[in-house]
Amino acid sequence: MPPLPSELAYVPFVSVEHMMGLIHHIGIETALRDLAREIEADFARWEQFDKTPRVASHSEVGVIELMPTSDGEMYGFKYVNGHPKNTKEGLQTVTAFGLLADVESGYPKLLSEMTLLTALRTAATSAMAARYLAPKGSKVMAMIGNGAQSEFQCLAFKAICGIETVRLFDVDQNATAKCAKNLKGHGLNVVSCESGEAAMEGAQIITTCTADKQNATILTDNMVGVGVHINAIGGDCPGKTELARDILLRSDIFVEYPPQTWIEGEIQQLDEGHPITELWKVMSGHASGRTDTKQITLFDSVGFAIEDFSALRYISKAIEGTDYYSQLDMLADPDDPRDLFGMFERSNE
Amino acid sequence: MPPLPSELAYVPFVSVEHMMGLIHHIGIETALRDLAREIEADFARWEQFDKTPRVASHSEVGVIELMPTSDGEMYGFKYVNGHPKNTKEGLQTVTAFGLLADVESGYPKLLSEMTLLTALRTAATSAMAARYLAPKGSKVMAMIGNGAQSEFQCLAFKAICGIETVRLFDVDQNATAKCAKNLKGHGLNVVSCESGEAAMEGAQIITTCTADKQNATILTDNMVGVGVHINAIGGDCPGKTELARDILLRSDIFVEYPPQTWIEGEIQQLDEGHPITELWKVMSGHASGRTDTKQITLFDSVGFAIEDFSALRYISKAIEGTDYYSQLDMLADPDDPRDLFGMFERSNE
Repeated sequence: MPPLPSELAYVPFVSVEHMMGLIHHIGIETALRDLAREIEADFARWEQFDKTPRVASHSEVGVIELMPTSDGEMYGFKYVNGHPKNTKEGLQTVTAFGLLADVESGYPKLLSEMTLLTALRTAATSAMAARYLAPKGSKVMAMIGNGAQSEFQCLAFKAICGIETVRLFDVDQNATAKCAKNLKGHGLNVVSCESGEAAMEGAQIITTCTADKQNATILTDNMVGVGVHINAIGGDCPGKTELARDILLRSDIFVEYPPQTWIEGEIQQLDEGHPITELWKVMSGHASGRTDTKQITLFDSVGFAIEDFSALRYISKAIEGTDYYSQLDMLADPDDPRDLFGMFERSNE
Repeated sequence: MPPLPSELAYVPFVSVEHMMGLIHHIGIETALRDLAREIEADFARWEQFDKTPRVASHSEVGVIELMPTSDGEMYGFKYVNGHPKNTKEGLQTVTAFGLLADVESGYPKLLSEMTLLTALRTAATSAMAARYLAPKGSKVMAMIGNGAQSEFQCLAFKAICGIETVRLFDVDQNATAKCAKNLKGHGLNVVSCESGEAAMEGAQIITTCTADKQNATILTDNMVGVGVHINAIGGDCPGKTELARDILLRSDIFVEYPPQTWIEGEIQQLDEGHPITELWKVMSGHASGRTDTKQITLFDSVGFAIEDFSALRYISKAIEGTDYYSQLDMLADPDDPRDLFGMFERSNE
């Protein structure tokens, strides 16, 4: 009989099934609020984090990225792919998993699915940003693009910003029907619209989240009235944008991490040096969010490693004392660290 | 009842226990030879790989690194930490795991422990290099540093280079005793020595693998006679070297990936521009290995991502049709890729 691995050899693992169970157990709106709070707290201490642009491996059909960061105490990274053509093949455009490790020992402390968790953290980040940027008392949101991220966005804006009505539009009516059906029973007024223009009616917040890998113009300049907040989350790689350039020129633009957003965000369309504001400076009191009711605010979101870090840390705490994880025998841990070979030999006895 | 995840949602996972079982099943010497062959084949097509230096996150007590690479068909990365102080706390200095993914879809295809696998690939790489660099007919190897890597090195040089005698030395006699004990029954003449000088006697190959994080001088110049091959694998981070600089000046130096070796290898001690040879050029016929019986050859090995890639691909094939893996539910895979939320909702029914 091989000796059992010691506790140190195990890494808690949150599978997709565990993650779904955990979020149902917590309640999705509570989880979104909790996540927004964790992310906001990390944005407020932004300067404590190691930040690097993602490490990307590009191919003709997609990209595979590693997004690492550390606050000096914990280290985290996310593996994520982006393959727009996958949808046609019945695969997810984006799959993801993530890891947290202890900086002091280098030992992994959590491995987790992050497809669902990324959808949750993206929505929580959008809604958190809107609390600083959207018009006060916003009740109506236009949701342009009704794919995999749309319901999470709608629920986050309800839970965190008090949105009561969502006006859905997608070039594919089936996507809108799916989104409307999924949102039933979640306490939102859901209005399915026939055009992007119709979706804008009365909306204080416009969220765009479409998946084409090309410079598309989901929003044209004349669709955007004064005083709105635009939450643009679909542009997230070079050559993929959603907004007409003229909209950017009329907006005050807020971003996560400029070196990454200049490459991947809507601001690809602008000249270098165009003024933008880092969102963390708003959270930490170093810059203003919305200052004027006529101002158009734009959150040009591409997703950043710190959001994943916050989300992984949240899950790491949330699973404590629950059954929503298993233990993976992922690390060799011989009794004598110099005796890796002896551990191997004895495993055959 | 939630619906079962589809096959696409699963990622084969090789735990430490599985890896040990698999290597026993294959036989460690066969596995080392197989690995050397895979690594050699990838070195011979070196130019097809995406190469980047590792992405390192340093702290005062150690480093956590991600080592990605791709050959355009598969993508792989390894997570690895290096914490020299861990040994004193009963932890491994190095723990590691790795992932292979399909470039076409971005979907992960293998998750594996890599603590044991890294020990195997490091030893296989050393012995593969020695086949081109060591004196013909080498039968005796000095093994300086008898820690976690030492037995793997000895067996790889037996299996791949025909070494018959290993002469062990470590400043800690317990380490030497452990190594000698572990090598019993593996068909090697094992000689425990009282000094580094004694270990050199009659050795055509000198392997150094010590773990101190400092510029140590494990080999002094007068210990190294003409015509030997030095396999230096213990220096693997900035400020950590094992050889006296004078030895480097007398040697023809072979390295894996120069941008990384200049930072982490023995050649940290040399002036920029000192001549070095990339090992892949020897494998692919673009450069010579050993050309002279009096030549001192030095493989200044720090470990490179392609070696991990080769090893993961080997394991990925080796587990087929065996029970040496489990399936991890790591990827969300809704029937309709746009319906992630619906999958989440239905999981609670």
